Amino acid sequence: MSDTKFAVIGGGSWATAIVKMLSENLDEIGWYMRNTFAREHILHQKHNPNYLSAVEFHTEQLRLTGDINEAVAYADIIIFAVPSAFLHSELEKLTVSLEDKVIFSAIKGIVPETGLIVGEHFHDRYNIPFESIGVITGPCHAEEVALERLSYLTIACADEKKAGTVAKNLSSDYIKTKISDDIIGTEYAAVLKNIYAIAAGIAHGLGYGDNFQSVLMSNAIREMRRFIKRVHKMKRNINNSAYLGDLLVTGYSVFSRNRMFGNMIGKGYTVKSAMMEMSMVAEGYYAAKSAHIINNKHERKIKTPIMDAVYNVLYEGKEAKKVFRKLSEKLD
Amino acid sequence: MSDTKFAVIGGGSWATAIVKMLSENLDEIGWYMRNTFAREHILHQKHNPNYLSAVEFHTEQLRLTGDINEAVAYADIIIFAVPSAFLHSELEKLTVSLEDKVIFSAIKGIVPETGLIVGEHFHDRYNIPFESIGVITGPCHAEEVALERLSYLTIACADEKKAGTVAKNLSSDYIKTKISDDIIGTEYAAVLKNIYAIAAGIAHGLGYGDNFQSVLMSNAIREMRRFIKRVHKMKRNINNSAYLGDLLVTGYSVFSRNRMFGNMIGKGYTVKSAMMEMSMVAEGYYAAKSAHIINNKHERKIKTPIMDAVYNVLYEGKEAKKVFRKLSEKLD
Repeated sequence: MSDTKFAVIGGGSWATAIVKMLSENLDEIGWYMRNTFAREHILHQKHNPNYLSAVEFHTEQLRLTGDINEAVAYADIIIFAVPSAFLHSELEKLTVSLEDKVIFSAIKGIVPETGLIVGEHFHDRYNIPFESIGVITGPCHAEEVALERLSYLTIACADEKKAGTVAKNLSSDYIKTKISDDIIGTEYAAVLKNIYAIAAGIAHGLGYGDNFQSVLMSNAIREMRRFIKRVHKMKRNINNSAYLGDLLVTGYSVFSRNRMFGNMIGKGYTVKSAMMEMSMVAEGYYAAKSAHIINNKHERKIKTPIMDAVYNVLYEGKEAKKVFRKLSEKLD
Repeated sequence: MSDTKFAVIGGGSWATAIVKMLSENLDEIGWYMRNTFAREHILHQKHNPNYLSAVEFHTEQLRLTGDINEAVAYADIIIFAVPSAFLHSELEKLTVSLEDKVIFSAIKGIVPETGLIVGEHFHDRYNIPFESIGVITGPCHAEEVALERLSYLTIACADEKKAGTVAKNLSSDYIKTKISDDIIGTEYAAVLKNIYAIAAGIAHGLGYGDNFQSVLMSNAIREMRRFIKRVHKMKRNINNSAYLGDLLVTGYSVFSRNRMFGNMIGKGYTVKSAMMEMSMVAEGYYAAKSAHIINNKHERKIKTPIMDAVYNVLYEGKEAKKVFRKLSEKLD
């Protein structure tokens, strides 16, 4: 399978980290990014000027392009790692067919235009069969990949062989991989954790301590389990790294943009000003809305007090302090 | 039940926090501590000079004594909060009978002399019926109780009414309680989490990052589940706060003595010098040995790679760096 060609779509920190991981194994990697300046900078200075700038690339391995069609045409397996808010507009540029391509999502978000998780979006809108759709999930902060700190990834795909190919090409001394067949569950976990990271950030900003934080996380994993079970019932151990570990690394890490965003709101920023202060999109912002809509679709709603609290703060203009005091009564 | 008399045994930070919690509800609390200077200091300066010194007591509420028999004779419900390493020698001083007393353990450790968890120790050695034995467990750092930061406790006892009485008297604006009937499971969780906190500390000291830490915790909760299920099979949700939350607050908090102890070892201190540097006992040190013995009692051992790693570093003189490299291969 060493002839399989990979392309990475995106120029942010996670896309940069994925290209770094692949570059440990592949002679050539297709890499699409919109930003012309960043592309030129990488070619001449050997690092991405905006994200993980300490990572040095061997540029002869990179097929950098500013044309998404070129990257898609080149590759057999295409890894999408753009923020979910930009996926729709990027895909609209496609003239090359995605048919016969294998699509892996490293996006961890919900497509705002359709309210779908990325896998479903590709399936519904681009007729990609589920056997050709996969998910790359953590627990993994891009910043630690840059530092080559030991990290674990879960690669999910209904087609075990495709999952194996992606896993093999991402593995290295500092990256361990495992495969899973739960694409829906791992993708929802990756989406929901960003909402819980915002909740953790809000709590921190409001002055709640470590004791509360650990109760919040213990409730979050139970809430996540109920939610995912409702959306896609199958046998899974919610305490596996792809679910619990991914929640923890985001909820507890200082690197998490979602936690930072929540923290600002807890400290008194308005949602709008917190969003303006941050140069990167907090995925959990969109996820909170979509999860709310999905949960409201079901006649018999499941109890989701934490995501409800985040939704009320972000979208209903409710005061964080009051919302979290109420939330604290519902946790146990 | 407002006539129920409480006594707290111990003068450390957790004992001090428990007296503070009780003092929100009771007119009088028996409090035994060995240290004469500390007792005198509390009576005159209204705070414990050695632990949580910011907490001010209304001394008229306190029946402080240096005689454990006086405290035991006084109370109906006795809360033990001494380090597990000192329990045996404290109990040897008893001339007053424990019969008809209700014993709650806030100890989170294994009695080194017997290798038993505290509840079993009281049952086996003092013939206390299990209906009169309870456990007070977190997630709760004493330091945050001192700051009156919202915290949650689980009070476990086979006798629901006794659990309720203790829960009611610990509850306040900043303390929420829930009751459980899983004394064995919650107590083992409180013991094992200290081993995992040492593991988290060692990993941190060795330079492993947040990504690894979250995988370690995700594996730890699964290992804990297997271990507790083996020791005492019953229906429990391991993701409840008393298990998962308690693990997280200890594993992730800078307040944790066990994590600090592990961190020093990861950074290259010998076990002996790390123990000497710390003025407080790291409960996980004893727990690692007892858990190892318990696990080896069973013919078909369950897989416990994390507690094995900690045991090998602490008791077998193995090099932390090598042991954790091997451990990292076993995690997923």
